Amino acid sequence: MSQYRAPLSDIDFLVTHVFDFAGHAQRCGYDLDRDTLLSVADEAGRFAGEKIDPVNRQGDVQGARWEDSRVVTADGFRDVYRAFCEGGWNGLRFPEQYGGQGLPAVAATIVDEMWHAASFSFALCPMLTNGAIEALLTAAGDELKATYLEKLVSGGWTGTMNLTEPGAGSDLAAIQTKAVRQQDGSYRITGQKIFITYGEHDFTDNIVHLVLARTPDAPKGVKGISLFVVPKYLVNADGTLGARNDLRCASIEHKLGIHGSPTAVMLFGEQNGAVGYLVGEENHGLEYMFIMMNEARFSVGLQGLAISERAYQHALAYARERVQGKAVGDDGSHGNTIIRHPDVRRLLLSMKSKIDAMRALAMYVAMQKDIAHAAAAGTEAMERARSRMELLIPVLKGWFTETAQGVTYNALQIFGGMGFIEETGAAQYFRDARIITIYEGTTAIQANDLVGRKTLRDGGTTVSSLLEEIAADATALANLDHSAARALSVRLGDACQALREVVDWMLKEQNSAPRKLYAGSVPYLELWGTVCGGWMHARRMTAALHAPLSPEQRAAVLHSARFYAEQLLPHATALASGIVHGADAALDFADTAWGDSA
Amino acid sequence: MSQYRAPLSDIDFLVTHVFDFAGHAQRCGYDLDRDTLLSVADEAGRFAGEKIDPVNRQGDVQGARWEDSRVVTADGFRDVYRAFCEGGWNGLRFPEQYGGQGLPAVAATIVDEMWHAASFSFALCPMLTNGAIEALLTAAGDELKATYLEKLVSGGWTGTMNLTEPGAGSDLAAIQTKAVRQQDGSYRITGQKIFITYGEHDFTDNIVHLVLARTPDAPKGVKGISLFVVPKYLVNADGTLGARNDLRCASIEHKLGIHGSPTAVMLFGEQNGAVGYLVGEENHGLEYMFIMMNEARFSVGLQGLAISERAYQHALAYARERVQGKAVGDDGSHGNTIIRHPDVRRLLLSMKSKIDAMRALAMYVAMQKDIAHAAAAGTEAMERARSRMELLIPVLKGWFTETAQGVTYNALQIFGGMGFIEETGAAQYFRDARIITIYEGTTAIQANDLVGRKTLRDGGTTVSSLLEEIAADATALANLDHSAARALSVRLGDACQALREVVDWMLKEQNSAPRKLYAGSVPYLELWGTVCGGWMHARRMTAALHAPLSPEQRAAVLHSARFYAEQLLPHATALASGIVHGADAALDFADTAWGDSA
Repeated sequence: MSQYRAPLSDIDFLVTHVFDFAGHAQRCGYDLDRDTLLSVADEAGRFAGEKIDPVNRQGDVQGARWEDSRVVTADGFRDVYRAFCEGGWNGLRFPEQYGGQGLPAVAATIVDEMWHAASFSFALCPMLTNGAIEALLTAAGDELKATYLEKLVSGGWTGTMNLTEPGAGSDLAAIQTKAVRQQDGSYRITGQKIFITYGEHDFTDNIVHLVLARTPDAPKGVKGISLFVVPKYLVNADGTLGARNDLRCASIEHKLGIHGSPTAVMLFGEQNGAVGYLVGEENHGLEYMFIMMNEARFSVGLQGLAISERAYQHALAYARERVQGKAVGDDGSHGNTIIRHPDVRRLLLSMKSKIDAMRALAMYVAMQKDIAHAAAAGTEAMERARSRMELLIPVLKGWFTETAQGVTYNALQIFGGMGFIEETGAAQYFRDARIITIYEGTTAIQANDLVGRKTLRDGGTTVSSLLEEIAADATALANLDHSAARALSVRLGDACQALREVVDWMLKEQNSAPRKLYAGSVPYLELWGTVCGGWMHARRMTAALHAPLSPEQRAAVLHSARFYAEQLLPHATALASGIVHGADAALDFADTAWGDSA
Repeated sequence: MSQYRAPLSDIDFLVTHVFDFAGHAQRCGYDLDRDTLLSVADEAGRFAGEKIDPVNRQGDVQGARWEDSRVVTADGFRDVYRAFCEGGWNGLRFPEQYGGQGLPAVAATIVDEMWHAASFSFALCPMLTNGAIEALLTAAGDELKATYLEKLVSGGWTGTMNLTEPGAGSDLAAIQTKAVRQQDGSYRITGQKIFITYGEHDFTDNIVHLVLARTPDAPKGVKGISLFVVPKYLVNADGTLGARNDLRCASIEHKLGIHGSPTAVMLFGEQNGAVGYLVGEENHGLEYMFIMMNEARFSVGLQGLAISERAYQHALAYARERVQGKAVGDDGSHGNTIIRHPDVRRLLLSMKSKIDAMRALAMYVAMQKDIAHAAAAGTEAMERARSRMELLIPVLKGWFTETAQGVTYNALQIFGGMGFIEETGAAQYFRDARIITIYEGTTAIQANDLVGRKTLRDGGTTVSSLLEEIAADATALANLDHSAARALSVRLGDACQALREVVDWMLKEQNSAPRKLYAGSVPYLELWGTVCGGWMHARRMTAALHAPLSPEQRAAVLHSARFYAEQLLPHATALASGIVHGADAALDFADTAWGDSA
């Protein structure tokens, strides 16, 4: 196995030259300069590489195990979790009032990539805790905050999200878990939840479940869902642990990947009902859950970037070391390292070029989060940042995670036959990555959100504003007097034009043929991702041509952008054409004609 | 798990209306009419669905095991193998003289798809035996033929291909296994081979290894490789088994997929050298191996089709049964089956449309094999069929197997979270499929073959002739007076034009910038696959518009073709542009600039 190294030089390039982190932090009121940010990144990179990455393989081989009705995590996981919390990493972006470090989203984004790159299975635990913290911060009353937040921020307790039921996956309207109000103001929860990540484990002595359920007289559908805190152990007034709550993990799943992360079936209220505490108001649960989900979707998008980077590094190390064959047009008479072979270079640059685009876009969205958080509510700056963030979250979640499939696939391919052997490690990335286009909303769910809520609901205003900015950046590139910049300018401009036509078509057809729009929603998301990636390369390229980089570093930025321009952006036109013209065949297909398996 | 059903109605459509099997068989001198072919297909489909498919999951869960230095195959595998041989399926396409049934390649292609669809892990055993038979038929002397062929054709013994060594994967020139000639004309073989599929198992009492090795005075590189038969047990003059040969399986691999198929590390000659018998002449081994490899590459391509079909059927069954959410623009107030959701329909039709294209192309290539086999050597008909087959084998191997990745990926996606749970079965197809773009030559190896040997070597003659035929078929579509035919005509015409320009560019640049060509070889292969798939849809569509089909069946052919035209063919132009313009970035990238992992 190669060793994970945090991508510090790219992070430095982004925060110093592409995005001006110092100015950003100042504008958003964070007392954090660029140097401090980079030393946080450096320290996180060391923890990720030296502590987390080494247990990742063990997590896969051993997995979380179900023994005597308890979950036992893989060797090393628990120790690493404790060291992680002791290092203060768990509460990095949360208010100092609750023991956090109050760092901006940009900083959290930089280090979260590292945790996920080092081990998906491990990092899922703090990721879920973060979602629970976010929901409580936004919607919980003072008592719940006082009881739970400090413990969650320190990592002394962990959090979970209990949404899915056997009959309610993508469709949360179908949730059936019940919550009945008691005289003391608490609720009794009964029902079954599945696919609960870290629903049970041995890291901490308490687990704080956030559970979606319905009260008896709640309206049908998504407007009748409430959110509850349901702790594994009840908490006494003095903060110590009290009685075991009436909930248990019934089993954990046998999965394709992320073996180190226990995926629990949770049973609530087999006796008298599990004690739960309402978060915010009744029937607003989905609203609060969307706050968690937006955070979680952003994080899962980051997982796409992270595992791409990790798989890329692993393949790169092999490509630099493995000698096989004589590369076309090369001289090595005793064989070349395979990195000399043109196709291996194409694979590596296709990975790198996508990773470069994703990391920049993640940082851009994180900046919008910081701005939306810092600016006064209702101001134009806040609204603009918020709407842009909300537009880009499904793009980031959907496009990063789908892109990661190709990257982990290509990384395995570079290993040839060795890639198919589990000991090599490339297969684990490929397997682990497979979940991210599914959980926290499948790609189709993201795409439907992008079409419905993010494109159509405001009549195309938000998408048009972003698209105009990208097109202007594309035009500006042409003035940089560099062949690579001109190439990117033309390709990105064409892609923007193609996307513009799709948006216009959607606005026109939304009422007469809504099914057509949704038959093209996933390609539409892919098109958005492709365009945003090109945009980020435009930003990177512009920065690289002006910043005092070494010639080699500058060339790397330009080559990566050029590859993106020449090999990836041309597909934008094809995607657009498929969206506008290609829906009928799938929609009109006769239900009985799909195949012999009828 | 869904149950596998052989795609009999599509096979019927192809052999009856698209390709006129009756005429083909007659022209090639096979005494097999369409009805008989279809009843063979029917019977094979029943065997695949009722006998092989049910053991496939067990093969994955239990796997082939390494116990007390022996390989124990999964429960049921051995019994199914025996029933398979007793049914005469093993020797279907081999000469009656050796106990086979002498059926044409078209028939073998139809049934081989079924074996692979029902279980990759199982079907690999007969597939490898077939390769060994092919090599012996072509190159072995009478004595070897007399000793081994009948047993291999019946399946009483199995065959293997021993090519790869730790230092010789894609680069066979690096092979180090030694073969020293003895006074009796036999050889003593010493060396280590890895990744030997069914190198050891418990199906039969003998295994016939075909081994590549070098004699002491052989020329360096690929021109010094010879091919040997090295049986596990020596064979007495009367055909009974004699002494154990000096070879053994040292271990089997722990793999991402195809767990039911043992992948052996083989050690030859740890004592005095394993007894081997030269096939054909010394130093011609690679030539003979290419015969096997062409067969094997065709078969692996078929695996891509097969697992696509199997994964599609599995996902289709779930999409028809799973109720979740209300589909956009649909009425079901209590939720719809997910097949009503536009994106699920898009996914299903993208799978089906590719499967339809692949099955037709497989049959077309099989027909070229039959013609090349039947026509007199040196005749124009024979040469044309042979060169076309040789051109299309890397396309079929590379494009089918890459396409299968997306199809098995999408099939899993339709299951949502359930897809990630191993018990569901979709994950197995996804894992099993991952090997096929690697073994028998990675996609890059296929692509380099397509560029070098198949495109450039004859100055573009073979590719130009095929491309003209496709372009003519595209043009003819426009006259069919049907909107779907016109759409396909335009898209296919554009794609042909794009491919034509790439070929011209390659012919022009081959000497001045060979590395550029090879940096685009994989996209070039994908472009060829895309165009050939469109061509097959043109053939299917033309047949459907003329044949006496039910309106529903006709509509299904047209919708599938239309989807291909609108959603897939537009990417041809983007691929072409990437090939011609997109090589420099990857080739010029500085070796030290790939990342922090340096």
